[in-house]
Amino acid sequence: MSVIALGTMAFDAIETPFGKIDKIVGGSATYVAYAASHLVKPILQISIVGEDFPKEEMEELKKRGVQLDGVEIVAGKKSFFWSGKYHLDMNTRDTLVTDLNVLADFDPVVPESYQGAEFLMLGNLMPGLQISVINQLRKRPKLIVLDTMNFWMETTLDDLKKALTLIDVLLINDSEARFLSGEFSLVKAAKIIMEMGPKYLIIKKGEHGALLFHENHVFFAPALPLEDVFDPTGAGDAFAGGFIGHIARTKDISFDNMKTGIIVGSAMASFCVEKFGPQRLKEITKQEIDVRLAEFVQLVNFDIDLV
Amino acid sequence: MSVIALGTMAFDAIETPFGKIDKIVGGSATYVAYAASHLVKPILQISIVGEDFPKEEMEELKKRGVQLDGVEIVAGKKSFFWSGKYHLDMNTRDTLVTDLNVLADFDPVVPESYQGAEFLMLGNLMPGLQISVINQLRKRPKLIVLDTMNFWMETTLDDLKKALTLIDVLLINDSEARFLSGEFSLVKAAKIIMEMGPKYLIIKKGEHGALLFHENHVFFAPALPLEDVFDPTGAGDAFAGGFIGHIARTKDISFDNMKTGIIVGSAMASFCVEKFGPQRLKEITKQEIDVRLAEFVQLVNFDIDLV
Repeated sequence: MSVIALGTMAFDAIETPFGKIDKIVGGSATYVAYAASHLVKPILQISIVGEDFPKEEMEELKKRGVQLDGVEIVAGKKSFFWSGKYHLDMNTRDTLVTDLNVLADFDPVVPESYQGAEFLMLGNLMPGLQISVINQLRKRPKLIVLDTMNFWMETTLDDLKKALTLIDVLLINDSEARFLSGEFSLVKAAKIIMEMGPKYLIIKKGEHGALLFHENHVFFAPALPLEDVFDPTGAGDAFAGGFIGHIARTKDISFDNMKTGIIVGSAMASFCVEKFGPQRLKEITKQEIDVRLAEFVQLVNFDIDLV
Repeated sequence: MSVIALGTMAFDAIETPFGKIDKIVGGSATYVAYAASHLVKPILQISIVGEDFPKEEMEELKKRGVQLDGVEIVAGKKSFFWSGKYHLDMNTRDTLVTDLNVLADFDPVVPESYQGAEFLMLGNLMPGLQISVINQLRKRPKLIVLDTMNFWMETTLDDLKKALTLIDVLLINDSEARFLSGEFSLVKAAKIIMEMGPKYLIIKKGEHGALLFHENHVFFAPALPLEDVFDPTGAGDAFAGGFIGHIARTKDISFDNMKTGIIVGSAMASFCVEKFGPQRLKEITKQEIDVRLAEFVQLVNFDIDLV
């Protein structure tokens, strides 16, 4: 049931209408690992950090079943740093600083001990590196999920398009789906994007939930209506971690089970936004997760009879 | 099972990215009646028109079980006219023309034959007129639903606040909920608005679905993902008609049955946007409605087990 998770491990500085934090651990692979580790073990992490990345964070991850053989620690260098400020609606943000640091020279190597992993989560990162990890795996995983963002569509579209031909599930948000397809209608956009390679497409719509497309089927998962979204950073990665964690735990890659995976992902995202950084993902218990999943059932459950 | 429907009957001129129409029948009560008449009869219409309103439209409504005793026809005057242009995203529109015409002097009179109606749908209209109709009913209906819009919040807030103390269910969209409550979070907004009077609040989010709030409960209904939204005009009224039609048909005003009512309303709205004006609402068959309701079940249905 092992899951390889590729992505960044980083420091973030975040400003939201609710507060400000100058330095907190972040990065796509960090969020994926914390979310997925509630569902499945081991998580086989592939990332890169500088010598400044906290030892305690590494220990915390290990305790949760996250293996770090694939995490390169570069002496004398700093970890990737991102700083951003959210607008009042929390759906848009400005990037203030992006210091690539160690990420500039990242050339991921899949450790021998990771070979044979059944599931691969390619967290948001340069598409060329996502391709490199796929190519290093001698046996194709049962399911390859790729998360990406508008930045890679604008700067490395050819690499991204190549990556799309190699994967099963693509995770993007609504504006990215529109950008990538050139279509405003998400239904039309989904058809075009699935022709680019992925058999499954998940379009995240933030507070408006997420859509799963496959052939002519569509599934809609709501976001949990929350009183406050404290910090949206990492919500998409937590969603990805919850999704791949559920799929790996159940070893079932059917469309119906992906629906449930999206609900689990939405639950993880709903926890993630409650506090700064990955803090809330570290605190939550199995019981809290179960209660939240039951809330999702309540949220969308209805009886219907024909007219 | 009778439903009183108050609202406008009008002409619209509509421009969307897909086309343009100079004159088509519209108005909140027209859409409500066409949608609700698929579910329940009679609909007891209260409205006002000029002598220009088509006789054929009146006959069409009557054939569907819509009683028109409460529709005043003013000789020598014109019907209410609205003209609007939708932006590319179809979520925002500019009002180009509003000619009140007969609506300027509308003073609705509830016909004696309407007394004793069990359900009251107060379509989007001046709040003072909505209150007047409530006050004319000698026996309070089992359920009073009120639809309104930002214009009345900005121009006649005192009347609207009074109306809110008299009703059971309020229907507004997300930006109106934020405006009315002064809260950005829809969960917080809902609490504040329910304290103003309505025990149930439905927040419509267009292509992002709708939320139903009651005490500490919340239900989420998705919008059907559509390839094209041809013309959103009347979608909110069709939603209202489907909702009240379902409630009246089943005579069940429980929270659980309101959930189903919202799905039926969403189905009616999804038909409405497929063609200009109320055209599609006139064409649809019971079988088409049933097929669409089944699509909603498919859209949100998932299995969950605990982690």
